[in-house]
Amino acid sequence: MTYAMIGTWRMAYEGLSKGMDLLSEGGKSADAIETAVKEVENYPFFKSVGYGGLPNANGLVEMDAGFMNGDTFEVGAVMGISDVKNPIAVARSLSHEHYNSVLVGAGASQYATLNNFERKNMLTERAHKIWEKRKQEIVEKNLSPYDGHDTVGMISLDQMGSIAVGTSTSGLFMKKPGRTGDTALVGDGFYADSEIGGAAATGLGEDIMKGCLCYEIVRLMGIGLTPQKACDQAVYSFTKKLEQRYGKIGEFSLVALDKDGNWGVATNVEFTFAVGTEQDKPAIFIAHPTDNDKTKIEPITQEWLDAYSKRIKAPID
Amino acid sequence: MTYAMIGTWRMAYEGLSKGMDLLSEGGKSADAIETAVKEVENYPFFKSVGYGGLPNANGLVEMDAGFMNGDTFEVGAVMGISDVKNPIAVARSLSHEHYNSVLVGAGASQYATLNNFERKNMLTERAHKIWEKRKQEIVEKNLSPYDGHDTVGMISLDQMGSIAVGTSTSGLFMKKPGRTGDTALVGDGFYADSEIGGAAATGLGEDIMKGCLCYEIVRLMGIGLTPQKACDQAVYSFTKKLEQRYGKIGEFSLVALDKDGNWGVATNVEFTFAVGTEQDKPAIFIAHPTDNDKTKIEPITQEWLDAYSKRIKAPID
Repeated sequence: MTYAMIGTWRMAYEGLSKGMDLLSEGGKSADAIETAVKEVENYPFFKSVGYGGLPNANGLVEMDAGFMNGDTFEVGAVMGISDVKNPIAVARSLSHEHYNSVLVGAGASQYATLNNFERKNMLTERAHKIWEKRKQEIVEKNLSPYDGHDTVGMISLDQMGSIAVGTSTSGLFMKKPGRTGDTALVGDGFYADSEIGGAAATGLGEDIMKGCLCYEIVRLMGIGLTPQKACDQAVYSFTKKLEQRYGKIGEFSLVALDKDGNWGVATNVEFTFAVGTEQDKPAIFIAHPTDNDKTKIEPITQEWLDAYSKRIKAPID
Repeated sequence: MTYAMIGTWRMAYEGLSKGMDLLSEGGKSADAIETAVKEVENYPFFKSVGYGGLPNANGLVEMDAGFMNGDTFEVGAVMGISDVKNPIAVARSLSHEHYNSVLVGAGASQYATLNNFERKNMLTERAHKIWEKRKQEIVEKNLSPYDGHDTVGMISLDQMGSIAVGTSTSGLFMKKPGRTGDTALVGDGFYADSEIGGAAATGLGEDIMKGCLCYEIVRLMGIGLTPQKACDQAVYSFTKKLEQRYGKIGEFSLVALDKDGNWGVATNVEFTFAVGTEQDKPAIFIAHPTDNDKTKIEPITQEWLDAYSKRIKAPID
């Protein structure tokens, strides 16, 4: 049996590489997911996940995370959790419970303390500065408060044939306190069935959830579509439907992996992702939607990577 | 065009009757849903929804509600909201927002205050007594704390052909603080598409969400299945899958309504529901699963209704 991992955004790369090391040595998908997502949560310069994630309108970092085991359909999730170093670890732990496996708000944070998860003030000085600056811009330039909603979503297939999926985000920058998106909603932001495959989403959660996109992609793979065809069909047909019926549409991107290690992505915006398989070392790609409801995928350029690296560490003035 | 409503449990009946009155006069589905669900939330003797709902392990009533407009796919939802008279009204109001349409915990309660929704201590003396009694029983008789998780879920079709769905619950009795189920998760606890139909769920949310059952039922109606066949196929095939893969299975029941006013239900436990159409006045039925993956539906008996009425008002000693 083979193994593979895929994750949303360039930020997934380092974590995914660690997860792939585990998988290559015969490790479990659930462990690979937790390792990989933690890596993203811990890196202070990714401003939409974990430590360094941008705060809500009140300046507090509230996070969402989801986990699903595709063997058993176990699901664990937290929404609006705060002061917790690794929301993905809490979500995974909750997935073992038959009752009370999805917790929100103060109850989620309490659970983390009671179960000895590391508490941490997740607001970095940099994130605080970006928040202060944004508050001023909103007033001075009449800007929309909302910007940035990049969830890390990872799917893993291990050599035992088990698929797991994990997601984590600090959510929409400047969100209202308590706001949650699709990240912790099973079927919307993530789904996995080890007999078929898994899917994960990133983007404007309020719109992704309207289409139950992760469940739909896994379902389409289940009736024989490749991960790429399943992503294209689910994402582009829903994009059209939402434009017709709702009149507007946020940005979103989906990734999928099947039980044989094949993968796919679809997006309505420029979208980077990381993927590794038994054959191909972890690498970063960039995807764009095309006019004919397909997805154009190219290797990332060193130029893009250099600009990204500079951008995420640029001084905040 | 015709009109119809269906709602979970016997408790849906009075509210559904009021909603049907609105629909017969040309009213909107969204108004019928809000009217109907509010009626259930306001009645103190329904112990799993709104006022009089049973509290969490700490003795606090934390509620979940969801709303979806099948014309536009607008979704609004609250999870772990407290001290709010009508969670369904908050969820419906949120559905008009493009951002921040799903709120959890303290943020959800704050939104209700800021937007002038009526605040109310939702813990009745009766619910408090039941909680005290249960706490003792758990210690003395080593009982499982969890019991009762009956969401009211209503689907409405109006004469303009619009379908809306709403759900509301105080959740699992004795749940951990912050626990939420499927009730406020779109696709899991509710879904609506006015070109097809709608679905709503009740039961152990932790298991319902594993199958994305409401989205799946609407999808099946979309490819031509009747609401009854869609419910049977989604619910009984998922029940089997969950038994095989997860090894255990909670109780759950689903209701569905299509764009022509046809309805269906499926359940893995004795389940009552209320339904009304242009042709048939609102009435209460009782459903049971059969051995051949179908659902047996019969009119409720007066005997059953009398016993129910007595039971929900019986003294707590």
